[in-house]
Amino acid sequence: MTSPTIGAAGAPAPAGAPAPVGAPTRPVRTPADDLLAHVDEVVVLRGWLHRQRRLAAVSFLVLRDASGLAQVVVREPSLAAGLGSLVEESVLEVRGRVVANPQAPGGAELVDPEVTVLVAPAVAPPFDLYRPQVAASLPTRLDHAAVALRHPARQAVQRVAAAAVAGFRSTLDQRGFVEVHTPKIVASATESGANVFALDYFGRTAYLAQSPQFYKQIMVGSLERVYEVGPVFRAEPHDTARHLASYVSLDAELGFITDHRDVMAVLRDVVAGMLSMITDRVPTAVDLVGGLPTVPAEIPVLHFADALEMVGDATGTDLSAEPDLAPAHERWLGEWARREHGSDFVLVTGYPMAKRPFYTHPEPARPAYSNSFDLLFRGLELVTGGQRLHRYEDYLAALARTGQPVEPYEGYLEAFEFGMPPHGGFAIGLERFVARLTGAANVREVTLFPRDLHRLAP
Amino acid sequence: MTSPTIGAAGAPAPAGAPAPVGAPTRPVRTPADDLLAHVDEVVVLRGWLHRQRRLAAVSFLVLRDASGLAQVVVREPSLAAGLGSLVEESVLEVRGRVVANPQAPGGAELVDPEVTVLVAPAVAPPFDLYRPQVAASLPTRLDHAAVALRHPARQAVQRVAAAAVAGFRSTLDQRGFVEVHTPKIVASATESGANVFALDYFGRTAYLAQSPQFYKQIMVGSLERVYEVGPVFRAEPHDTARHLASYVSLDAELGFITDHRDVMAVLRDVVAGMLSMITDRVPTAVDLVGGLPTVPAEIPVLHFADALEMVGDATGTDLSAEPDLAPAHERWLGEWARREHGSDFVLVTGYPMAKRPFYTHPEPARPAYSNSFDLLFRGLELVTGGQRLHRYEDYLAALARTGQPVEPYEGYLEAFEFGMPPHGGFAIGLERFVARLTGAANVREVTLFPRDLHRLAP
Repeated sequence: MTSPTIGAAGAPAPAGAPAPVGAPTRPVRTPADDLLAHVDEVVVLRGWLHRQRRLAAVSFLVLRDASGLAQVVVREPSLAAGLGSLVEESVLEVRGRVVANPQAPGGAELVDPEVTVLVAPAVAPPFDLYRPQVAASLPTRLDHAAVALRHPARQAVQRVAAAAVAGFRSTLDQRGFVEVHTPKIVASATESGANVFALDYFGRTAYLAQSPQFYKQIMVGSLERVYEVGPVFRAEPHDTARHLASYVSLDAELGFITDHRDVMAVLRDVVAGMLSMITDRVPTAVDLVGGLPTVPAEIPVLHFADALEMVGDATGTDLSAEPDLAPAHERWLGEWARREHGSDFVLVTGYPMAKRPFYTHPEPARPAYSNSFDLLFRGLELVTGGQRLHRYEDYLAALARTGQPVEPYEGYLEAFEFGMPPHGGFAIGLERFVARLTGAANVREVTLFPRDLHRLAP
Repeated sequence: MTSPTIGAAGAPAPAGAPAPVGAPTRPVRTPADDLLAHVDEVVVLRGWLHRQRRLAAVSFLVLRDASGLAQVVVREPSLAAGLGSLVEESVLEVRGRVVANPQAPGGAELVDPEVTVLVAPAVAPPFDLYRPQVAASLPTRLDHAAVALRHPARQAVQRVAAAAVAGFRSTLDQRGFVEVHTPKIVASATESGANVFALDYFGRTAYLAQSPQFYKQIMVGSLERVYEVGPVFRAEPHDTARHLASYVSLDAELGFITDHRDVMAVLRDVVAGMLSMITDRVPTAVDLVGGLPTVPAEIPVLHFADALEMVGDATGTDLSAEPDLAPAHERWLGEWARREHGSDFVLVTGYPMAKRPFYTHPEPARPAYSNSFDLLFRGLELVTGGQRLHRYEDYLAALARTGQPVEPYEGYLEAFEFGMPPHGGFAIGLERFVARLTGAANVREVTLFPRDLHRLAP
């Protein structure tokens, strides 16, 4: 048994020291969550001091690394006393012997430890990271994001987000889509006009892109099927639990469709692929949120007009003149889908053209309605999409109808002027998707370094 | 044999028409590059009229879709005459019988065609897309990006870029990295001070992020190993063939390293993974550029001081006082690596601290040098990276040394105040990487909708 030491220049070289080229410089590191596979072996852990509990005869260190937590048992009084001065979040290397212990997290723990302090902070974090929930308000946690994001639950959320994006990509890769990266600085505030950030671009005024909409459509003319994962920017004046000034948009667009139903079929597979990748990559997080929803092979579809009629009938109100679904209507439809179809998802199609952007394709037989859709998840809007106009003359007519000049759209319109197939697509807001899956009340809970009306740092 | 028709309302429903739910609405489409697998079958192609050649007795249509080109043989005089009015880039559906023909592209062609015009543009594109190279200047091609990007060579470049990014991600996913998305709007122009875009953020001044550097380091404190693929913004006043005002940065950062050599080992695998994914996914593009380089198992490494000495000796000049490598030096080192090590790649380490950002970790034994590196590819800088400072007190000292206040860095410094492991990372500029691989003389040749001093549209 090696004698316990703190900060000793033992076998592991301190970081930054020159090491002989080609020689192994440090002992192999074992992940904290993998102790049970190494019972009776001597292993090396590296991580953060997550928690320290000193009892009369023994001290327990909980070491955290990216894989999870490991318990270290310190019986040597001088080592325990020396460790007592370390604050939480100290960075440690711990060498010790693994013993099975059903009471320890993961079923095993480290004994006879030799501890090397890699970094010893002077002060402890502003809140305890070892508690199941950080006991601080959301603004405080966001102010101290560099620390708050270390909480295991926040790590899990980021892994869920990463897996969701990986599932989005892999589903589309398998279907012949090509990833693109389109400009975030644009010449005109064309897409919605409002809520756009202006910037000084070499002495000219430019704008931050509110979506890759126009560019992904242009790219259908080249690669037919494209997707993009990237930031979008909204100068959103509403201070709500679900609005951000910037978020990650998962955008897809595909050509040679019949109509919006081809887009919905891809969307169904994409959402299923996202959930499947989360289940595969982050099973612990799935347990935390009590399981993920299942995407039915055929998501129930309701036309907007029928949806309004159903909700109106059920609530004894005449909704036939409503131009849009209110949140209460969406909740009712979510309950209906669960009750009648056993589905957490329902697609509403045919939203009135008046409520959709100018590039939306009308429903051929009833042109006041559109070939667009929203995907509702448990009664909340999760995805918006639809078929787009594809004929040049239809764009000219749509701009004229909405009183807009042609000139700011020239680079976009050229795609249609020279032949574009019928096409459509959809966009998923990543943070909102993750918030709804994990049941977060505020989208900021699941957003890395959120940006909003009041918050610009860290 | 069906009689040839143009624009007839035949079996294929026109786009946008209502189709019975659950019933197949249209015949299955065959990719243009897959005709040889369907000899003697009747198939349906959909795509763009890439080229039309009318001879005395026969006309040839070349149809382009995302998969490639297919030749359609038109012998029926009335059909040939009717098609004669179609301009290039018309969107067509063509049903016909496949026959083998070694002279046709792909070894097979379509005969006895029935043509449905899905979209008939009024005018032809401003340049011919069927020529091996578009006969227009780069500015003209960029002005008409919506059309120029349809050229098969430009499609191939975008597929190469997408595969490069997929290889970056998959290599890092396999090594326990987690993808993150960090803010693009930041409160202060801290990272380099110069060349930053300012914007109006709800009445305050904010800036576009020049890199995810600070945020990826913060995230090492949480997830240990992170990567990001996203836009970065530089108000780059230089009008050169390799500078853009925005590009896609492939960033990685990892904790618990010994020093920068652990980072270089990951980088080696990442570049190999990117090239391997390009080879797998876009073999035709690889042929176009005459094959891809091979990444050696161990990329040759030279220290900056040794590199200067070698170049000085070879050129008979005293370079010992040089603070950086000039482009000519980098070219010499590229030739040296090829000659002495058979490698297209060489890593130069130890650049002087004075030339590296304040967060760079010094070389412990010679603190005027740094634990940083550049990866040179055929004598051109491709990647920059290194070990970062990780101790809070070192950051305070570095800021004091460079005459900077602490306050704008507070959210960043908090990560170090509360315990950060030794860490480092690297960044790859996607467009520059693709330009160098494909031999493009100007990075704009391979950039979707480039942004620079003069260009803000399309």
